[in-house]
Amino acid sequence: MSTTDELLQNAERYAESFDRGDLPLPPGRKVVILACMDARLNPYGLLGLSEGDAHVIRNAGGVVSEDAIRSLAISQNLLGTEEIVLIHHTDCGMLTFTDDEFAERLEGETGQRPEWRGLAFSDLEQDVREGIERIRSSPFIPRTDRVRGFIYAVETGRLREVS
Amino acid sequence: MSTTDELLQNAERYAESFDRGDLPLPPGRKVVILACMDARLNPYGLLGLSEGDAHVIRNAGGVVSEDAIRSLAISQNLLGTEEIVLIHHTDCGMLTFTDDEFAERLEGETGQRPEWRGLAFSDLEQDVREGIERIRSSPFIPRTDRVRGFIYAVETGRLREVS
Repeated sequence: MSTTDELLQNAERYAESFDRGDLPLPPGRKVVILACMDARLNPYGLLGLSEGDAHVIRNAGGVVSEDAIRSLAISQNLLGTEEIVLIHHTDCGMLTFTDDEFAERLEGETGQRPEWRGLAFSDLEQDVREGIERIRSSPFIPRTDRVRGFIYAVETGRLREVS
Repeated sequence: MSTTDELLQNAERYAESFDRGDLPLPPGRKVVILACMDARLNPYGLLGLSEGDAHVIRNAGGVVSEDAIRSLAISQNLLGTEEIVLIHHTDCGMLTFTDDEFAERLEGETGQRPEWRGLAFSDLEQDVREGIERIRSSPFIPRTDRVRGFIYAVETGRLREVS
């Protein structure tokens, strides 16, 4: 049995006890989380989120990519969120390579070079600060007075604000 | 107190009972989930995921954007995942507008027009199928024999496979 098949069995059990069918589309707590995709970072457990509470955007690094800006713009402009929480974390895979190194590896294996640029980082705190700036300077994100950035320590489970 | 401050109080409690500080960086179950950011869709509850199990990528729509391809490429090439689970859902905000409508609205409000294209959709099943094709045709995602797509029903909590 594949892992996906095992997850589908869990989904069956989830549906059997499901009683949240009346939740509205806009997030009840008017907050959107942008976090790394890392397996050790569970935004629901960490932040105490339940179904209906928050938009959750995730990508490799938790970076403020153009696609993250698109998602944040939809979250605020169409679905009324007002606060943004950025989360990077210790021991992040993005700290282990540069954009060029990853591009060269893929080019060596596939003969094609990806166009991704400016997304790997070497300093967690600096990338959180730059991400906040990228959000504040986007014309498509109207509410930027409550944007805060954090680093999650995978070793201790603690969340620390980047000031 | 802001919502973010309330979530930080939850994070304090999470850290107090935290005992998963020894998890490795690669996802233990070798699977990556790509799902919509929707507040009603909780991949952890739905799929029974715990800390350390899976990469989770999310954006508006759960679409296979260029940034999702970047994250999937990092997940497979650098962190060893082997299965991909795509999840769209009923009552999705992405069904309520076209790329052009959203671009026109933002242009009207800000004087600038975003360059996002080809990401809104009008048919859930078709977009899941197109997403799977986009993954299969990417040179940067080497393992595409276990890519499966699903639609989550926010009304019933049920997950249905798109065949």
